[in-house]
Amino acid sequence: MNEIKIFSPATVANVSCGFDVMGFCLDSVGDEMVIRKTEKKGIHITHIEGFNLPYETDKNVSGVSALAMYNDLDLDFGFEIEIYKKIKPGSGIGSSAASAVGSVFGMNELLGRPYSKRQLTEFAIKGEALASKCEHADNLAPAMFGGFALVKSVSPLEILEIPSPKELYATIIHPQIEIKTSESRALLPKEVKLEDAITQWANFGSLIHGLHTNNYEIIGKSLKDVIVEPHRSKLIPYFDAVTKAAINAGALGSGISGSGPSIFSLSQGEETAINVKEAIEKTYSKAGIEYDMHVSKINTKGIKILN
Amino acid sequence: MNEIKIFSPATVANVSCGFDVMGFCLDSVGDEMVIRKTEKKGIHITHIEGFNLPYETDKNVSGVSALAMYNDLDLDFGFEIEIYKKIKPGSGIGSSAASAVGSVFGMNELLGRPYSKRQLTEFAIKGEALASKCEHADNLAPAMFGGFALVKSVSPLEILEIPSPKELYATIIHPQIEIKTSESRALLPKEVKLEDAITQWANFGSLIHGLHTNNYEIIGKSLKDVIVEPHRSKLIPYFDAVTKAAINAGALGSGISGSGPSIFSLSQGEETAINVKEAIEKTYSKAGIEYDMHVSKINTKGIKILN
Repeated sequence: MNEIKIFSPATVANVSCGFDVMGFCLDSVGDEMVIRKTEKKGIHITHIEGFNLPYETDKNVSGVSALAMYNDLDLDFGFEIEIYKKIKPGSGIGSSAASAVGSVFGMNELLGRPYSKRQLTEFAIKGEALASKCEHADNLAPAMFGGFALVKSVSPLEILEIPSPKELYATIIHPQIEIKTSESRALLPKEVKLEDAITQWANFGSLIHGLHTNNYEIIGKSLKDVIVEPHRSKLIPYFDAVTKAAINAGALGSGISGSGPSIFSLSQGEETAINVKEAIEKTYSKAGIEYDMHVSKINTKGIKILN
Repeated sequence: MNEIKIFSPATVANVSCGFDVMGFCLDSVGDEMVIRKTEKKGIHITHIEGFNLPYETDKNVSGVSALAMYNDLDLDFGFEIEIYKKIKPGSGIGSSAASAVGSVFGMNELLGRPYSKRQLTEFAIKGEALASKCEHADNLAPAMFGGFALVKSVSPLEILEIPSPKELYATIIHPQIEIKTSESRALLPKEVKLEDAITQWANFGSLIHGLHTNNYEIIGKSLKDVIVEPHRSKLIPYFDAVTKAAINAGALGSGISGSGPSIFSLSQGEETAINVKEAIEKTYSKAGIEYDMHVSKINTKGIKILN
C-alpha cells in the first residue's frame, strides 16, 4: 500500500468539569487527508483545500507532527500529504488536533503500524504545540482513540479511554466569531477557591462514573464547570441563552468546546440532539451572528481509514 | 423485633485526590451498638463502653442523629441506645460517623425500614455535624453504603456508589497523637493554583476510572493529593517515612485518612497489605510514638446487623 485516505475527526476538549484533561470525539465532522509514500525523502505537503494553511512542512501542524515521527525513523523514502480541511481553524472543535493526528496515523498505517496510538499521540503533540503554543493532548487523544479520553498526564503521556454510553449525542454550535487565544488565556484565573476546586473534582469524578454506568442523568448533573466557564463564557455572545435553550429542549448539559467559541451540548438520543439543535438555532438566529451547527453521535472509533 | 445489635464500620474519608468528596469503608474495625424499642418515649443512651462520651442525647453524636430521625416520625414509643465504642474518637477513621449512622440504621431496621439509606444518611449528617461543626458525608456515606462512596453534593445529598475491586485492602496506622480540628482546618489553603486543581481532578477522575475497571495500577497512580496533603501532612510525624515504607513494601499508594492523624495505604491483596503493615511498623517503632494498626479488606456492605 503506497497511499491511504483517512478521516480525522473533530473533537470537543475540556467537557465542562474536565477542563484541560478530557475530550470526546465527533463523527459527523472531520478532515480528510491523503498520505502517500514518495521516493523523494522528507515530508511534503502537496495540496491543501478548504482553508488557507501554510505549505511549509515546519509551519504546518500536520507537517510538524509528521516530521517528529519521520525523524524518529530512518527511511530511504518520504511522504506526501494532501489536506482536505473541513474543520474550520479556530472553531474550538479540535481543528489543529485533527491535522496533527492525521498525518502520523496515515504514515503509520503505510508503514505497517510500527507505533502504538499512544506513541502516535506523542508525535502529534509536537504538531498541536505549533498551533496552541503549549503541549496538550485533550483534543489529540479523543481524535486518535475515539470516545471519551482522559489525559491524566501529558509528560509522561497517560491516556485513559473512558467508555461512552451508546445513545450519547453531541450538538455543536460554532458562532463565526474569532476569539484570540491570548484573550481566552488571559481570562483563566491563576488561583481558584478551594471550595470551587472541590466542586469541580466532585463533578468530574461523577462524570467519569456516569460514563462508566451509562447513567445519563448523572452525566447531565456532572456537566458543570465552576472554574473556567464563568470567565470564558463572557467571550461567547448569547452563551447563557444557548445553554438554557439546550436544557429546555432536553439536553443533559452544555459547555464551552475547547476554548470556544463553539458550544457543545450532550443529549440522550439523536432525536433530542436534533431538538436541541433546532432550539439553539431559534435562539441564535436572533443574534445576527453567522453560525454552523453539527449533530453527531459520539465517535467511539476515532480516526479511521477511508476507501 | 424489639432489639437489634449492629456493627458500624470505620471509614477512610478524602482518599487523597478525593478530598472532601470520597470515602471508603473498613471491615476489621467498627463500633457495636444495641438499639432497643422502649415504652418510654424519646431517645435515651443507656450504656457507653470503650470511651468516655456524653450520655445526654443532644450532646452525643448517636443521640443527635437518632433525634433527627425520631422527630421526623410520630411514635408512641421510644428507643434506648447502647454504644460499644471501638473506634477511637479523633483517630481520623470516622469514629463520629460510625456513631451517627449506627443509631439511625438500627432504629430503621426495628421500624421495618421506612427510610432509604440516603434518607438515613441525611439524619446522620445532623449527628456528624455535632462532632465536626459542619455538614459533610464523606465518612457517613461509605459507612452506610459500604465500598467507595462519592458524595457529589451534600445539599441536596447525592451519593454515588463506586465499585470496589475485589482484592483491594487497606492498611491503617493511627499514631496516638492529637490533632486539633482547628489546627487542621487552619492549614487548609483558601485558594489553590489552577494547575494544581487540574492535576487533582485528573487524578480523581482517573481514580474513579481505576475503581470501575479493577485497574490497580491506575488506582495507585491516582492516589495523589497535591492540594491538601502537602499542608496537613506536616502535622503527622514521619508521614513521608510511612508512605515511602508503604510503597516500598508494595502498596499502591497512601494518604491521610480524613484529617488525620491516621494514614491509609491501599494494596492489591491481603498479603501485600500485611507486608505494608509490617514495613510501616518497622518505620514507626523508631518514632517513639504509640500507634494502632489495622489491615482490612474494603467492606463493600457497610453497616450491618449482628446476632
